[in-house]
Amino acid sequence: MKSGRRNALKLFAAAAGAATLTPFLARNVLATRETEKSPAVPWPYKKLDLERVAERAYGGYYQGACCYGAFEGIVGQLREDVGYPYTLMPSEIMVFGEGGVAGISSLCGALIGASSAIFLAAGGLEGKKRGEAFGLIRELFTWYEQEALPNYRPKNPKFEIKTSVANSPLCHASVTRWCKATGFKSFSRERAERCGWLAAAVAKHAAELLNSRLDGAFKPAHVLSSEVQTCRSCHDKGGTLENSRGLMDCGGCHFSSAKVKHP
Amino acid sequence: MKSGRRNALKLFAAAAGAATLTPFLARNVLATRETEKSPAVPWPYKKLDLERVAERAYGGYYQGACCYGAFEGIVGQLREDVGYPYTLMPSEIMVFGEGGVAGISSLCGALIGASSAIFLAAGGLEGKKRGEAFGLIRELFTWYEQEALPNYRPKNPKFEIKTSVANSPLCHASVTRWCKATGFKSFSRERAERCGWLAAAVAKHAAELLNSRLDGAFKPAHVLSSEVQTCRSCHDKGGTLENSRGLMDCGGCHFSSAKVKHP
Repeated sequence: MKSGRRNALKLFAAAAGAATLTPFLARNVLATRETEKSPAVPWPYKKLDLERVAERAYGGYYQGACCYGAFEGIVGQLREDVGYPYTLMPSEIMVFGEGGVAGISSLCGALIGASSAIFLAAGGLEGKKRGEAFGLIRELFTWYEQEALPNYRPKNPKFEIKTSVANSPLCHASVTRWCKATGFKSFSRERAERCGWLAAAVAKHAAELLNSRLDGAFKPAHVLSSEVQTCRSCHDKGGTLENSRGLMDCGGCHFSSAKVKHP
Repeated sequence: MKSGRRNALKLFAAAAGAATLTPFLARNVLATRETEKSPAVPWPYKKLDLERVAERAYGGYYQGACCYGAFEGIVGQLREDVGYPYTLMPSEIMVFGEGGVAGISSLCGALIGASSAIFLAAGGLEGKKRGEAFGLIRELFTWYEQEALPNYRPKNPKFEIKTSVANSPLCHASVTRWCKATGFKSFSRERAERCGWLAAAVAKHAAELLNSRLDGAFKPAHVLSSEVQTCRSCHDKGGTLENSRGLMDCGGCHFSSAKVKHP
């Protein structure tokens, strides 16, 4: 009897120890939730399947537009493949970039979404990491300006879409060049579909750049034209004027014949 | 003795229950971390102190440049004042927008950072929320194009900075107009300081818009010029051509005399 009681008390003491641990743990669950800091950028990256990225971006486009689509194409896939910390990132923040930011048609939203995803997975506040991610983003922009896009066809498209060359990373310039090349209106369903394909193409290429970086094989494949270098030789860093900056295709907006001819 | 033992066993059973709860909770702490989804956008907003936002943005500029500075000005303040879920958001993601995205000088990074912060605190995937946040962002852009900026002077500036009117939300256009107005070079330390003041001014105005929305008092104070409306009447939705889109100041890039005169 006595030893039975002693054993019972021993067990009780052990269990009671655990019981005091319970509110401690409960407090810490809350404490973690309240005080947890998200891990520093860059977040862990796993090589992505390019077609899955593209299809997810295309689907995302019809939920939250171009910027959300391109971002979710990459980050949504990493949420599935890597999990935490991508589970902390609400892709809805990127809806802001729709139609060149809130429909203002400034910078292409797909480029904003893909660039921020690149930075999340490959960048950082520290100079070297920042510069590496900037290298990928610059290549993405120059590719966007120079290639005939969209160059990805979704599995179940609403329409067939022809390509055009944007000569600019800006939303309205990219849209206008496509409208002129195809005859479709800028608010047509075909143009919307074109931007869905484009969000897919941009996300896919951004993932391709991230994959090549992971392999240590990234090299910029697109260079600024000699015309842009001529502009920069006067206007950019170290030039006689040094009164501007940038790595955009200047000719996309400046000195195009249309502007000079317009009434 | 019998009743003592019974009581001990009762206590033991209660404690044992708690003990089985412990590994359950421990499992869930891990499960929460691995599977927690960040709360849906918009995240809770508390009225912000505008000067604190501006000072934090100015300080942030010298850590992670314009886009990070403007974003961290608002989101960093909300991380302090609201806490979770802003603790989940790594502001470093926004470094991508530096110098009009990776130095490409497309869209002003301060506008990117402030717009995404606005969307995080006031937007959402759903149409009505999306539209409301877009209204704030559009007002921020038109304000940026039309006002003499930067209109915030940090408490401890490195230089005194004069203002200019950008006529454009684009980084290189905004920089060039400031360089021409002040005579400073685009890669000077004064120009960098100007962009620090600008990140502060943009974050402050974005917080002002968020505050007025919280009071139910938001009204757009800036409208597109009649010249822009003339352009849009042909080129935008419903126009004869309908081959473009946008709410930017067209004259910021198109038909400026400098472009026609250039060799």
